[in-house]
Amino acid sequence: MTMPNNLEISRSASLKPLAEVADGMGIGAHLLEPYGRAAAKVSLEAIAELADRPRAKYVVVSSVTPTPLGAGKTTTSVGLGQAFGHIGKRAVIALRQPSMGPTFGIKGGAAGGGYSQVVPMEALNLHLTGDMHAVTAAHNLLAAMIDNHLHKGNALSINPHAITWRRVLDVNDRDLRQIVTGLGGKADGTPRQGGFDITAASEVMALLALSTSLQDLRERLGRIVIGYDVDGKPVTAEQLKAAGAMCVILLEALKPNLMQTVENTPVLIHCGPFGNIATGNSSIIADLIGIHAGDYLVTEAGFGADMGAERFFNIKCRNSGLTPDAAVLVVTVRDLKTHSGKYRVVAGKPLPEEMLAESPDDVTAGASNLRKQIANIREHGIEPVVAINAFPSDFASEHQSILDIAAEESVRAAVCTHVPDGGKGAIDLARAVVEACDQQNTFTTLYEDALPLVEKIETVARRIYGADGIDLSPLAERQLADYERNGFGNLPVCIAKTHLSLSSDPSKKGAPTGWRLPVREVRASVGAGFIYPICGDMRTMPGLSSAPAAERIDIDDNGEIVGLA
Amino acid sequence: MTMPNNLEISRSASLKPLAEVADGMGIGAHLLEPYGRAAAKVSLEAIAELADRPRAKYVVVSSVTPTPLGAGKTTTSVGLGQAFGHIGKRAVIALRQPSMGPTFGIKGGAAGGGYSQVVPMEALNLHLTGDMHAVTAAHNLLAAMIDNHLHKGNALSINPHAITWRRVLDVNDRDLRQIVTGLGGKADGTPRQGGFDITAASEVMALLALSTSLQDLRERLGRIVIGYDVDGKPVTAEQLKAAGAMCVILLEALKPNLMQTVENTPVLIHCGPFGNIATGNSSIIADLIGIHAGDYLVTEAGFGADMGAERFFNIKCRNSGLTPDAAVLVVTVRDLKTHSGKYRVVAGKPLPEEMLAESPDDVTAGASNLRKQIANIREHGIEPVVAINAFPSDFASEHQSILDIAAEESVRAAVCTHVPDGGKGAIDLARAVVEACDQQNTFTTLYEDALPLVEKIETVARRIYGADGIDLSPLAERQLADYERNGFGNLPVCIAKTHLSLSSDPSKKGAPTGWRLPVREVRASVGAGFIYPICGDMRTMPGLSSAPAAERIDIDDNGEIVGLA
Repeated sequence: MTMPNNLEISRSASLKPLAEVADGMGIGAHLLEPYGRAAAKVSLEAIAELADRPRAKYVVVSSVTPTPLGAGKTTTSVGLGQAFGHIGKRAVIALRQPSMGPTFGIKGGAAGGGYSQVVPMEALNLHLTGDMHAVTAAHNLLAAMIDNHLHKGNALSINPHAITWRRVLDVNDRDLRQIVTGLGGKADGTPRQGGFDITAASEVMALLALSTSLQDLRERLGRIVIGYDVDGKPVTAEQLKAAGAMCVILLEALKPNLMQTVENTPVLIHCGPFGNIATGNSSIIADLIGIHAGDYLVTEAGFGADMGAERFFNIKCRNSGLTPDAAVLVVTVRDLKTHSGKYRVVAGKPLPEEMLAESPDDVTAGASNLRKQIANIREHGIEPVVAINAFPSDFASEHQSILDIAAEESVRAAVCTHVPDGGKGAIDLARAVVEACDQQNTFTTLYEDALPLVEKIETVARRIYGADGIDLSPLAERQLADYERNGFGNLPVCIAKTHLSLSSDPSKKGAPTGWRLPVREVRASVGAGFIYPICGDMRTMPGLSSAPAAERIDIDDNGEIVGLA
Repeated sequence: MTMPNNLEISRSASLKPLAEVADGMGIGAHLLEPYGRAAAKVSLEAIAELADRPRAKYVVVSSVTPTPLGAGKTTTSVGLGQAFGHIGKRAVIALRQPSMGPTFGIKGGAAGGGYSQVVPMEALNLHLTGDMHAVTAAHNLLAAMIDNHLHKGNALSINPHAITWRRVLDVNDRDLRQIVTGLGGKADGTPRQGGFDITAASEVMALLALSTSLQDLRERLGRIVIGYDVDGKPVTAEQLKAAGAMCVILLEALKPNLMQTVENTPVLIHCGPFGNIATGNSSIIADLIGIHAGDYLVTEAGFGADMGAERFFNIKCRNSGLTPDAAVLVVTVRDLKTHSGKYRVVAGKPLPEEMLAESPDDVTAGASNLRKQIANIREHGIEPVVAINAFPSDFASEHQSILDIAAEESVRAAVCTHVPDGGKGAIDLARAVVEACDQQNTFTTLYEDALPLVEKIETVARRIYGADGIDLSPLAERQLADYERNGFGNLPVCIAKTHLSLSSDPSKKGAPTGWRLPVREVRASVGAGFIYPICGDMRTMPGLSSAPAAERIDIDDNGEIVGLA
């Protein structure tokens, strides 16, 4: 039997009125603003109104180091949330909003999958309530005000060559990566090099996700450093008088979006910062609401546990004050087979044929990555649970290999079939998570605020990535010294490296040892509140492929969407 | 007594639930999708469901040739709509959505004014339901797919120098007018000249406003000509396989947005195409719904009657099949004083002091413009009504001058005080409009589809602008011949000229004679369905001023917006 595709499942789902979904969270209708039939904004007043309700157990979902196809963190987060309903617990799921650029690029939609997805998937993948567009608008208003400032006399003595603020659009458009703006005549601005990133890579997106209140949002916007003046002093959005208007543009976007899964489990969709140069985590505001809206709050962190979960612990939790109770590590057979070093998986291409043959040994050969990511969770004092995201092409012997590794590490593990089976396919996982949460956890961040930036980088590199140390380029050294001098030394670090390896080299699988992390340069998201060292090529504006998903997306004769999947 | 500002009035307005507003239009709750508390989308099924209800009288509001400050068409449209309620008639108002760029530039918000405005004004001016952003996204996806096509081998043999499709953003950013894209390495695209227009200037916006159904939207998107191949043949969005995805991006944006005025009169806000290079009229879809949703449907056309109203008659009505019953011409004392040629009004600056002195003679000296715009309405077989939009600084003698001119032209006229007084300040106008609609009207377009393009331009120039003829540049002549050859000769023309004069010279006031219209070049919006000759400098991307409105817009300590006005 073939399973219907995601769009078909989404269409056939029986949606509850969102007011009813919210009611189950203790969120009254007065806190809800419907946005179409698919989603509703939740007022920030919900935080105070729910404060006296019991605190949910807080569960973060990340994965082993994934292949370019991903390990299935979103489906697992959704499946787990749904599974709680099958064992008499109420769950809330908090996820990032997918970016529209990739929807029309390679992905064709992202909302979980099968019977563990957020619905309606069209709404989730197309604009939703416009938050991404609001980030674009706020970001580009600041860009326009910077160039306008230069054009109108440059009273702040901004060094045009030291402007770091680019522009953003939510589209995959490689031709916008590097551009020259301000050409034409005298009335058309100041010629200089610039470029566009995808909106998910905007500091405004990272900042929105880390804000804890409207006033906090306003202050973070004001702290954005857009570049440096001729004396090398940072110039802020506040000095450009842009932060107030940016905040007004973001007023609605600061409110999380309530949706539901195919099984009517509540989902808070909010923000979608990049997982390499930014935190890759959904918003703090959504979690501040969700933490009092059920028995369990399940949230997803981008990429592997060395990336999204590390930022969850050391940046998101540091800002929110919330502490996690357990961490799920998603793993697939194909992930560990890839970590054996025998196979190469490429995005947008089918898996190598030989990878589909039964081979529990290949799975075992890739164990080192899973073991290291388990250790990475435990570094933060949190109990991991391994979720084996099963595929129809897997063999029971291969699942057993993973269960054996988990047993050796004394970690709970469960085989999950939530994609074809919905929540009941993740009941074992849910039971394991309940136990892990009930265990004694002593959450700890990796480093103190006061640790010098260079030592923070070294701490993450050694303890999480397994590096022998770090190598700073002369530029990176100078930049770190500048940031310390400018008073940014107390910020946490968000190390931008490949998500395809624990190391900075995407071809190194497993748990590489005997290597050092090269730091090419170091950038600052002062408004968002982190410093991000660049280790390797970070692409902040994707391109389209030879046959982008956009070519297949259309309406049919009945006006229904086709080609989103 | 000082009047509260627009934002204060908007906040103090007593809003009705939109379901109740819709109910008064015969629109059931099943046709309504709330988007926040401020607006609701109306399903396109409303067109068919309302079809059997009586047809409203259809009234278009335009103005004399305005000063850069505008004549107050939006306030008058709102005031007139509200006034119908005071004389026992039900009205629906159809307006354009304001662009966010200018909101943060010079204007600080646009929603009518005083007690004749659309509320809540913050929602109207900030994103609303995201339609503008959807236009941006659809437009830029096509741009990305064009450059991707070049990058991936250029199978359609597109001539990179003959690409006319630019990019758009809803921001005032002069530095984006002329740019070079595709710089960097081989993986970063194809270097070529490009640029951004403001979203309101997008052909997608014009096309959305002229679409009569979802299928029509899909077809128009496919017909978009993005440039020419190496043989000079037009290349379309359909050939690039982009039109389907663009249509999917625009699915929600095709639905009009229901809002209300301070007096709870229903307002359909939909689309906001530019008034110079495009039609400057709100959407056909909104009018197709509104025409069966009340006794009177009041819609606004951008700029003077030579611009917006001419396009309303010859482009919008040609596409919609709807025929108007009356036309309101808004005029202010300052407009006619400016047409005397004695004063110069500059955007963003206070009026010249001497213009505020009582001078009915100055008003009379500017009569020629009002007379010509009255004639322009009558050219289309429609009865005009003069609406004198009164200002506190006006004198009764000055209003009398305008009433005298109207009497000489045998045109109904009324002094209106809807800004301070709301609907009751426009009751006389409403009564005059009722009479005008009950008169025998024989609507006629200016020209047939089959007339050659050059003769269409000449017809508008002579009969509407009062030119002695047109002068085509060699480029324009060649382009017109190309368009005829490519099968675009049956399209109407949308002449892009200054809105500050009946002529193409903004400094020429009154009703200039003895001049010829110079056509520099001719462009084609084939998807939208019109050809637009360029007569003078058309700015399609505004800049910011030395002290943009954005600098004053912020939130206060209570999280309330300040500085929008």
